Amino acid sequence: MARVYNFNPGPAVLPLEVLEEAKTQFVEYKGTGMSLLEASHRGKDYEAVHVEAIENLKKLMGLGDDHAILFMTGGASAQFAMVPMNLLGEGQVADYANSGAWASKAIKEAKIIGKVNLAADTSKDMPTRVPAVSDLKLTSGAAYVHITSNETISGAQWKIFPKTQSPLVADMSSDILSRPFNARDFGLIYAGAQKNLGPAGVTLVVIRKDLVAKTSEKTPLIFRYKTHFDENSLYNTPPCFAIYIVMLVTRWVLAKGGLEGIGRINAEKAAKLYAAIDSSSFYRGTAAKDCRSDMNVTFRLPSEALEELFVKEASPQGFKGLKGHRSVGGMRASIYNAMPVEGVRALVEYMRDFEKKHG
Amino acid sequence: MARVYNFNPGPAVLPLEVLEEAKTQFVEYKGTGMSLLEASHRGKDYEAVHVEAIENLKKLMGLGDDHAILFMTGGASAQFAMVPMNLLGEGQVADYANSGAWASKAIKEAKIIGKVNLAADTSKDMPTRVPAVSDLKLTSGAAYVHITSNETISGAQWKIFPKTQSPLVADMSSDILSRPFNARDFGLIYAGAQKNLGPAGVTLVVIRKDLVAKTSEKTPLIFRYKTHFDENSLYNTPPCFAIYIVMLVTRWVLAKGGLEGIGRINAEKAAKLYAAIDSSSFYRGTAAKDCRSDMNVTFRLPSEALEELFVKEASPQGFKGLKGHRSVGGMRASIYNAMPVEGVRALVEYMRDFEKKHG
Repeated sequence: MARVYNFNPGPAVLPLEVLEEAKTQFVEYKGTGMSLLEASHRGKDYEAVHVEAIENLKKLMGLGDDHAILFMTGGASAQFAMVPMNLLGEGQVADYANSGAWASKAIKEAKIIGKVNLAADTSKDMPTRVPAVSDLKLTSGAAYVHITSNETISGAQWKIFPKTQSPLVADMSSDILSRPFNARDFGLIYAGAQKNLGPAGVTLVVIRKDLVAKTSEKTPLIFRYKTHFDENSLYNTPPCFAIYIVMLVTRWVLAKGGLEGIGRINAEKAAKLYAAIDSSSFYRGTAAKDCRSDMNVTFRLPSEALEELFVKEASPQGFKGLKGHRSVGGMRASIYNAMPVEGVRALVEYMRDFEKKHG
Repeated sequence: MARVYNFNPGPAVLPLEVLEEAKTQFVEYKGTGMSLLEASHRGKDYEAVHVEAIENLKKLMGLGDDHAILFMTGGASAQFAMVPMNLLGEGQVADYANSGAWASKAIKEAKIIGKVNLAADTSKDMPTRVPAVSDLKLTSGAAYVHITSNETISGAQWKIFPKTQSPLVADMSSDILSRPFNARDFGLIYAGAQKNLGPAGVTLVVIRKDLVAKTSEKTPLIFRYKTHFDENSLYNTPPCFAIYIVMLVTRWVLAKGGLEGIGRINAEKAAKLYAAIDSSSFYRGTAAKDCRSDMNVTFRLPSEALEELFVKEASPQGFKGLKGHRSVGGMRASIYNAMPVEGVRALVEYMRDFEKKHG
């Protein structure tokens, strides 16, 4: 089969150039006589990868010396626990904005560890949306303010980030590196790699250095940010190969013109798809217009039967992963960085054809 | 450069056949039009990998329905914390045998979480060794007994495992699947993949099902074994590609005749290398003879200058990773499952030549 258009929500499409480069080096890495999968995480070949991945990420996000890049594992789900384990001291409260399924999971985990204030809750709103900055009821002296920059399931995305007194913490798993943003304004950013950064198996953490040492002595060493910061993410063996792919992906984003460049392409792709939805009465977007995600485009058809048929007829034509999350139904086209414009163009054409045929 | 003999302690050599198979499928997995790195962890292509990896592991270790296989992340270092977080209740004590550097790390982490009894301590012994089963001072009613089946740094290995009243927990990171053993006798086994199982980035946990639900409600969901058990390691996105390599490696071990077959080959490799050491007065093994590791063969030369030269001259001849751990010095040849017999034979020859030249 030819390469399909992969609209999976994550793990998701990767740049073909990245896959081809990694394939070339797969069995024997750069004339070293071994695969990078077999190389020591303390040897110079892997070290070069590790250093470049960190440098590229800092460059892309315009980070200075106040922030550190950490590579961890366990995905955003592990960060749901690690953030409060590290930053939510006894007697403190953390502000959480509940914007949907992923924010809810972060809140559920945080409540096991400490005290949570629900600063806003749009998780049940229809059409789906994230809270407006002006709706946030923040706690004075909160340990931090937690938001979910993009809700992968509902397809709602923060377009303007709040300016907060307490450190701003964001789960950016599904829109990291997809658009320009002021990364320096954040206390902590985390993202599972498997949407915009690379394969499943590595988690990016961007942390303001003054927050690193806040952890209580009761927290296990391995779950302290300080442990990983002190050893430049080499306290224990990192997921080297996943980080290698992240390095290649960051190189690719730099070549696309960084966050400005990729952001323009992403905005164009999203606009094309939302225009197709809005120009038809057959398709209906599920997110409020002012917070429609540029990454996960969610929409419905007139009936569930038609939705099923839409997915079914899409597959043999090479459109994969269009089914919405099982908890909400409907359609979802995830159009991360690595989804080419041609993929969106082809999908729009398929949507028009489908409407003509069944509308 | 031709493929080298890679004696790295971990990440370590992988079977060439596994690397070549994965390379073939790397950009387009089995005619699906996408890489497995891009495939959904809930789709049928990855599911087949996940299921086969679990089945192969159960088959290789002769496990029945009493035990479950979990795929986690964070390496053995995360398990150092997760084991006591899950199994060491308030008011309970856990017995730990301190056999060296890795056991010490497990103990350090456990002490942050709960009460530890040092059942034996050989961590400072020279020659290096693990405790004898008869030396263990176990606590009646202990939450569990923790051992480190093979000390990667010192090169000492348990040859007979204790029979304990409390659940036996073992860090088997550096000798899992290397020899026949009664896996059913263990309450919990864990292993970072990057020595005998696959690449860095996935951690194997074998757990007796009655231990799964012991965790306190105060433990974050993501760090409870129960969370991962209930969802068959799909609670959140697993490190799919690393698990795919583990699946291919387990297939390869099965083809070698399972643990009996690979164990015979490993014993032969270790015997060859220790014979070369013992038949010379130039080389000197550092582990006590009755607990010499079949995986990590540690030895010294008459001087540090000669040791440095040994590593230096080995490299252009295609022998890599022979330097001992920086904390102990000396030499270490890690001869995991995937190190071919020819590699050991060639190393023995190099050792003889080196002795002739510099002895």
